[in-house]
Amino acid sequence: MENDMLKELKEAVLERISPKPEERAYLKEIAELLVKKVELIAFSMDLKDISANLVGSAARNTWISGTHDLDIFIMFPEDASREELEKKGLAIARKIAEESESFEERYAEHPYVNMRYRGFDVDIVPCFRVDSAACIRSAVDRTPFHNEFVKKNIHGLETEVLMLKQFMKGIGVYGSELRTQGFSGYLTELLVIKYGSFDNAITSACEWQPGTYIDLNSHGNIQHAEPLVVVDPTDPKRNVAAALSLDKFCMFIDSCRKFVHSPTGDFFFSKPKVPLTDTELLERFKARGTDFIAISFKTPDVVEDVLYPQLYKMELAVAALLEEHEFKVLNKGSWSGQETVIVLELMASTLPALRKHRGPPVWVHKHAESFKDKYENAEDVFTFYIENGTYVAEVYRKYPEARSILKDRLTSCSMGKQVSSAVKKGFEILVGNEILCIEDISFKLFLSIWPKR
Amino acid sequence: MENDMLKELKEAVLERISPKPEERAYLKEIAELLVKKVELIAFSMDLKDISANLVGSAARNTWISGTHDLDIFIMFPEDASREELEKKGLAIARKIAEESESFEERYAEHPYVNMRYRGFDVDIVPCFRVDSAACIRSAVDRTPFHNEFVKKNIHGLETEVLMLKQFMKGIGVYGSELRTQGFSGYLTELLVIKYGSFDNAITSACEWQPGTYIDLNSHGNIQHAEPLVVVDPTDPKRNVAAALSLDKFCMFIDSCRKFVHSPTGDFFFSKPKVPLTDTELLERFKARGTDFIAISFKTPDVVEDVLYPQLYKMELAVAALLEEHEFKVLNKGSWSGQETVIVLELMASTLPALRKHRGPPVWVHKHAESFKDKYENAEDVFTFYIENGTYVAEVYRKYPEARSILKDRLTSCSMGKQVSSAVKKGFEILVGNEILCIEDISFKLFLSIWPKR
Repeated sequence: MENDMLKELKEAVLERISPKPEERAYLKEIAELLVKKVELIAFSMDLKDISANLVGSAARNTWISGTHDLDIFIMFPEDASREELEKKGLAIARKIAEESESFEERYAEHPYVNMRYRGFDVDIVPCFRVDSAACIRSAVDRTPFHNEFVKKNIHGLETEVLMLKQFMKGIGVYGSELRTQGFSGYLTELLVIKYGSFDNAITSACEWQPGTYIDLNSHGNIQHAEPLVVVDPTDPKRNVAAALSLDKFCMFIDSCRKFVHSPTGDFFFSKPKVPLTDTELLERFKARGTDFIAISFKTPDVVEDVLYPQLYKMELAVAALLEEHEFKVLNKGSWSGQETVIVLELMASTLPALRKHRGPPVWVHKHAESFKDKYENAEDVFTFYIENGTYVAEVYRKYPEARSILKDRLTSCSMGKQVSSAVKKGFEILVGNEILCIEDISFKLFLSIWPKR
Repeated sequence: MENDMLKELKEAVLERISPKPEERAYLKEIAELLVKKVELIAFSMDLKDISANLVGSAARNTWISGTHDLDIFIMFPEDASREELEKKGLAIARKIAEESESFEERYAEHPYVNMRYRGFDVDIVPCFRVDSAACIRSAVDRTPFHNEFVKKNIHGLETEVLMLKQFMKGIGVYGSELRTQGFSGYLTELLVIKYGSFDNAITSACEWQPGTYIDLNSHGNIQHAEPLVVVDPTDPKRNVAAALSLDKFCMFIDSCRKFVHSPTGDFFFSKPKVPLTDTELLERFKARGTDFIAISFKTPDVVEDVLYPQLYKMELAVAALLEEHEFKVLNKGSWSGQETVIVLELMASTLPALRKHRGPPVWVHKHAESFKDKYENAEDVFTFYIENGTYVAEVYRKYPEARSILKDRLTSCSMGKQVSSAVKKGFEILVGNEILCIEDISFKLFLSIWPKR
């Protein structure tokens, strides 16, 4: 990468994403206010040995201008009971929520409260204050250790993190939710600590391969199967990149190479996508010459981290069901809004009436005879003959149309609990242009970039 | 098999196929006449040590009434030159042919003469009189040894041979020509010698398996890969059943089981087949829902034993070409009359415009880059993306229609010399109902029993 150009580009990007002093000051003010509030409420509830802590990117100065997320952890003593933590933690958070614009109780391993507070997206999360990340009692207990490690090592590299995060956002690989399966903020920070700079991280990633192994503390002690392994500096058993999918890993490598070759601002700020019109979509379908089929049902009331793994599972199960009946699946994807839609693109959604059903070799006397008895003179058999040493019955295909298999057999597919029960409540099959009946603009966008995800 | 019923059935069959005394006497008279003629002509040409011999089923009393084939072998001394044998042998045969109704010179390893002589189909074949079948100089030299072996062992079993031959004819597995790939007359005789009777041969065959090994002299000395091995009693290295295909082997087993279960005359005398009308054929095509495609060309002027292996080879090559382009071939077959037609039945004769072209894994840097350079922004690429770690380019299918592949690429298929040159002179592609343009009634019959052979 040419240095001058790159320097200019970096400055331009940082100008847009680096928080200005006032924005910083305001965030700091609100964060301190919330921390103080938690401690005061705990005090008023007569709870001892409780502290509040700002964690996450806000605490590390690695947040991008405009993203106003605050993670406040209420730290309970290690010997507190789980029940106490949940009950008291929630009570404190609820108390603060009283002053919020809106709030919601959410459930991960523990309950926590998410709220809109003076324009900030605030999570107030109870956790145990343990001695080391190795003895955590709940997954969230790890966060304060991550916070500590990053704060200790990131000094002077904050803008490099901003650059890398924004790059990943721009190319669509940022976020470790189960929907995205990309890079988490913590992972991004560790990569910058490892490679020392944005430039270096990008250049190094060009040569990544599945099995790339990064262990800042050289303390990793187990094997991992994921494409990228970044051993958690606070826990030798944990791969920070465990959620990263092979395709997101590859998309990152791919974009790094492109960026090294010709660095531009477009990598950081993807252009807003405008969906194609129905006429354009119809033209595109026609040009492809394939057959689209979709299953739509009411979106179950669960968080995305529960929903998306079940949708991905459903895609696989539905594709397998269709392939089992000789329908060739070219692409598949899922979209979720008010309703949820699984879309499959097939070579053809109808097949010939006739299917060749191959029996046992003629010389396997007993099996051959019973196959023959069953089919040779059956009413719905086209022909019966010997080919390559086995009996063949040409029978009527049970499902010459993909639509009818799905109607009959969809509910027997393995799809995960909530999706399965949503589908059982009712679903619709849309074939070909019928898909365009789904009016949601974001669904149209999903179709416009098909089959990309 | 119940004995009384079977006995009656055998009598009824033999009544129809066993030559009557007058027919036998007439055949004997003509055969003796021809043998004498050969010897006289040889004498008149001043050739010494030449004898003539009637061989084949006529010599062994295993011929079926109405089949008037005579094989007369002119036996030259072992030390004669190949040139002398060919020249003199042909001279003798031509001399006899002068008195024939019609004749034709044919070429196997040696030239020989086939003629219509007083209603008989006569082959006059020169060969070397060698000491044992192990020292034959030409393939035909083996025949006199076969003749000798059968004559010595068949006595009293002649009618059993007639029964087995007629059974094989009736079910369509008789004849070792390369078109049929069935049982030869000699093979049938050896099976009767082995099993002692028609009944026993049929019952034993019900349990045949690929690898069934019959060696009357226990002198076989090499491994054979064919489904049935019958070691030639006159040559330990030779499998008499080498020409028998797996499917004809299986069809025989299958019919033997059916016959044992319910023996009727239908096995011996297949009903004359009447082709379906065009309307019926169209209905049948429609019901199957598949797409037919055919290649027709002028039949090359070669004997069936040359033609059919080339047609079978062509079927395979054409099917492979179509499958290579993602067309799924369900059945294939060939028919030959004035013109020759290869017919293929496809799941579909048109495919979507779009084809997924999978590139190398993204992390194989150099290959991945050159794939990407070639396709990412190419004009005729639908989309370019990463899937399961590899680049995928969705490109326009070069041949969305089976017809166009065949038009473009047929002549590059491996089809054997004469067929290839016939095809290169010109061919026609017929799709769907166009096949019915071929008017020949025997072609219509071929379509009527499709996909049976």
